[in-house]
Amino acid sequence: MTTATAPLSTAKDEASIRAIMDAWARAIEAKNLDALMAHYAPDVLLYDLKPPYKIVGVPAYKAMWEACLPYFPQKFRSVSRDINLVVGADTAFVSYLNKFEVDGEPHPCAGSWIRVTAGFKKISGKWLIVHEHVSLPYNPMNNTVVQITDPNNTTFDWGAACAEAAPK
Amino acid sequence: MTTATAPLSTAKDEASIRAIMDAWARAIEAKNLDALMAHYAPDVLLYDLKPPYKIVGVPAYKAMWEACLPYFPQKFRSVSRDINLVVGADTAFVSYLNKFEVDGEPHPCAGSWIRVTAGFKKISGKWLIVHEHVSLPYNPMNNTVVQITDPNNTTFDWGAACAEAAPK
Repeated sequence: MTTATAPLSTAKDEASIRAIMDAWARAIEAKNLDALMAHYAPDVLLYDLKPPYKIVGVPAYKAMWEACLPYFPQKFRSVSRDINLVVGADTAFVSYLNKFEVDGEPHPCAGSWIRVTAGFKKISGKWLIVHEHVSLPYNPMNNTVVQITDPNNTTFDWGAACAEAAPK
Repeated sequence: MTTATAPLSTAKDEASIRAIMDAWARAIEAKNLDALMAHYAPDVLLYDLKPPYKIVGVPAYKAMWEACLPYFPQKFRSVSRDINLVVGADTAFVSYLNKFEVDGEPHPCAGSWIRVTAGFKKISGKWLIVHEHVSLPYNPMNNTVVQITDPNNTTFDWGAACAEAAPK
């Protein structure tokens, strides 16, 4: 007989979601797209960092990675920080910063921390990602993306940004 | 005595969250920041469209709007579409497109649909927004934001984008 209580259940669900986040990182590092896609619901909705503005469903999501991975370095690490988990009985979401790290030469895929929000549903007893939102902010003065090089710096110098964006 | 079942409860919670989304729109249209902020948890985490990359807590969130609203047109409508609600017993999230619409002259605040993900928690019986992620995608070839002018168009011409971004 189980003696699990609600708080214990939440702790177990939190652990399950952290395990999925870890498995996701290991799968992308291995460029193993079948392992990666196993964590997604069939009708997942992705708001990605780059266009198109939305991607719907596992086949389209997988095709996006198949198109991108050839431009990735052979070896990289997927790391995350500032993880905020909100876990209910069958619905959960998490927000965090993620980064691909490389050794040696800088690589365009590893330039910035990016913001990720992932939404989960427990479907037939298994947590799956049903929604993912990945982004960077941009400066509306010049429509240029603003990279997150130092996540501990949460200020932004709008005066300097306006001066930079002004016509020369 | 209540005869509510789980599905009825979900329908009620979905209605509550849709009502919050509607009240949010009416509050921003009225530039009523106290009404707007009433829907947020005290420690809300915002990933906004523009820097800084994160804003934490109601006072900082309110200060952001206080700084922005003077640049908004006097009258505008906040409209949303493609609403995807995932509602659990005490945790929920929603993704959708939002736009500020103006009559007459075009306005920089009303140029594009934007992507929104909002995460909710039921706290002391009341649904509050604990996380919001607002963004547009960008073209990594030239680091320029890509506006969503036609949400029905979910393709992107990477060839044309690369050609545009290439040095002239």
